[in-house]
Amino acid sequence: MERISFELLARDERARRGVLHTGHGSVQTPAFLPVGTRGTVKTLGSEDLEALGAEIALANTYHLVLRPGADLVAEHGGLHRFMAWTGALLTDSGGYQVHSLSALNVVDEDGVTFKSHLDGSPHRFTPESTVEAQARLGADLVVCLDQCLPADADRRSHLAAVRRTTAWAARCRAVFGPHFRTYDYPQALFGIIQGGTDKELRQRAADELGALDFPGYAIGGLAVGEPKEALLETVALLDTLLPEERPRYLMGVGKPEDLVWCVARGVDLFDCVLPTRNARNGMAFTSRGKLVIRNAAHARAAGPLDPACRCWVCARYSRAYIRYLHQAGEILGLRLVTYHNLHFYLGLMHAMRAAIQAGRFAAWQEGFFAAYDAA
Amino acid sequence: MERISFELLARDERARRGVLHTGHGSVQTPAFLPVGTRGTVKTLGSEDLEALGAEIALANTYHLVLRPGADLVAEHGGLHRFMAWTGALLTDSGGYQVHSLSALNVVDEDGVTFKSHLDGSPHRFTPESTVEAQARLGADLVVCLDQCLPADADRRSHLAAVRRTTAWAARCRAVFGPHFRTYDYPQALFGIIQGGTDKELRQRAADELGALDFPGYAIGGLAVGEPKEALLETVALLDTLLPEERPRYLMGVGKPEDLVWCVARGVDLFDCVLPTRNARNGMAFTSRGKLVIRNAAHARAAGPLDPACRCWVCARYSRAYIRYLHQAGEILGLRLVTYHNLHFYLGLMHAMRAAIQAGRFAAWQEGFFAAYDAA
Repeated sequence: MERISFELLARDERARRGVLHTGHGSVQTPAFLPVGTRGTVKTLGSEDLEALGAEIALANTYHLVLRPGADLVAEHGGLHRFMAWTGALLTDSGGYQVHSLSALNVVDEDGVTFKSHLDGSPHRFTPESTVEAQARLGADLVVCLDQCLPADADRRSHLAAVRRTTAWAARCRAVFGPHFRTYDYPQALFGIIQGGTDKELRQRAADELGALDFPGYAIGGLAVGEPKEALLETVALLDTLLPEERPRYLMGVGKPEDLVWCVARGVDLFDCVLPTRNARNGMAFTSRGKLVIRNAAHARAAGPLDPACRCWVCARYSRAYIRYLHQAGEILGLRLVTYHNLHFYLGLMHAMRAAIQAGRFAAWQEGFFAAYDAA
Repeated sequence: MERISFELLARDERARRGVLHTGHGSVQTPAFLPVGTRGTVKTLGSEDLEALGAEIALANTYHLVLRPGADLVAEHGGLHRFMAWTGALLTDSGGYQVHSLSALNVVDEDGVTFKSHLDGSPHRFTPESTVEAQARLGADLVVCLDQCLPADADRRSHLAAVRRTTAWAARCRAVFGPHFRTYDYPQALFGIIQGGTDKELRQRAADELGALDFPGYAIGGLAVGEPKEALLETVALLDTLLPEERPRYLMGVGKPEDLVWCVARGVDLFDCVLPTRNARNGMAFTSRGKLVIRNAAHARAAGPLDPACRCWVCARYSRAYIRYLHQAGEILGLRLVTYHNLHFYLGLMHAMRAAIQAGRFAAWQEGFFAAYDAA
């Protein structure tokens, strides 16, 4: 395969149905990326991701660069081989984690200097070094370094972040090109749109990055504290600003209802820790809504997490047993809810793809919310 | 099925090859029981035990009685259904955990009073109450309450423990009989032989419990601090004392080499936390011996835990990745080594069964130790 490419198969109003062709198989979109922060989706192996039918997963550059290091992963022929995963991978730039996790970080025009949250050791990401690291990790989809601000940052800061993000994107693209390869398969570079919930700044970011003609666009700077309505308006705006023929990846979003609302607004790719992190806190996602497994109501419940679910966890285990495992602090409890939640998320994406393809996404959405309590 | 029964298929010198017929399938012996202390073999589900080909597992009465309680398990129709396990189950009496885990315990002629290690709440086990609890948990194989002493207890104490253990066994048998049922399948009561490493006391215990004609005999009070030679001599002695037609279960033993040595001395059933607990500490068992996955030597090792192993963990994952997972504290690392170790243990039992059946156990044993470093 020469390059990673995206094919738009259908639109139903603003919802899009497509396929991303990668050197690690096709990714049917809209798609949700399970988050494998440190090269494993917590509690699951790659064999579980395969069983779930996942076609793409995400890993975090920040974590992997600190440990085990891009060198060691590269020695193994890249992250796919290291984690024994045959599907596609996207890595983030690490910029978000630098801000949220590292002890101390200073942004300058040339990059960001920070201390590891593991041992306090000093590190630096530049636009070039983070793409270089992702290239060596071997992600199919690589993301430019950006500057992400909290929703309540002032406009002046947001403007500066957009300018900087554009400048960094241009540098990344100049050094690596939009398409490149480190191993025997193609890699593609995505630009990131910043701008908070300011329409003018989003327009500016989309124009500038659009002019650089990236193979795909990440939408950053959302789900960072802004009202839900502002998030949805921003996504809807970007649908009109971003090139139709390129995939759009909404970073770090979200709840099941968010996925539905944002698919309806033209998003193709999503990632979020919610189904996996919340699983470990005992929250299961079901066709009826959220379920808190530790609730006393489940202590004697012989039924599954979700009677409508077809996953092996629901076929085999009762809520009472899973609740007991969580109460007892047994690892199996974390694993079972994690698997179920990802099954729910991936099933949700599958259902949306089918509905868009059939031109009945609006009706499907109505049916979904008739059953699903998004409260 | 009327009752649980044991069939001795072959002997090769002192090694025995048999089959235990239970209401939850046949158990080929010699067999190793994975330890599912709290109703799950840590990090694994029942689907994993099935994939491993396990035919029987162990659960701890002490832990399950404290949480979630025998009542709740009974409401679900017993532990098999609660943990969704279709194979056979053995529960211990809880006596050992009372001594090793509970904050405060007092033994009297009628039982043992103790405080929960979870919340300090007061509890009491009598011979009748622990068998009653196991009956309601629904174990196929139920074990009498015994008194287990450390190896260095004096002879007077050992004698008292044997007397008490016999008296308790007689009470258990009188109330429940050797064969009983709580659900729609048969359960069988095993007596426990105590006596430390004192030949006379072991003889006495075997005589007294033999006279009570139990469907099986547990060998307790070993692997509690005595020299390995004394353990092996005691096991060899019991082989001559225990009824040929009943299964012998050596409790809490052991390392791979111990299993081999004790199969050679007529033991049919084993349980031990070693393959699972050590897995979580990063120790893998391989055909060559023990492997400490955190050792720097494995940091860049592309090979599997054991090149001779056929489990899916070894087929898929490198030592470098598994080491990294352990270094990073990722749950998947615990799970992968746990699965591999149980595969090794169950494979070892399988190999011994085949060797005994073929009448070449001595030759097999020589071959095993030529490769396996028991140091």
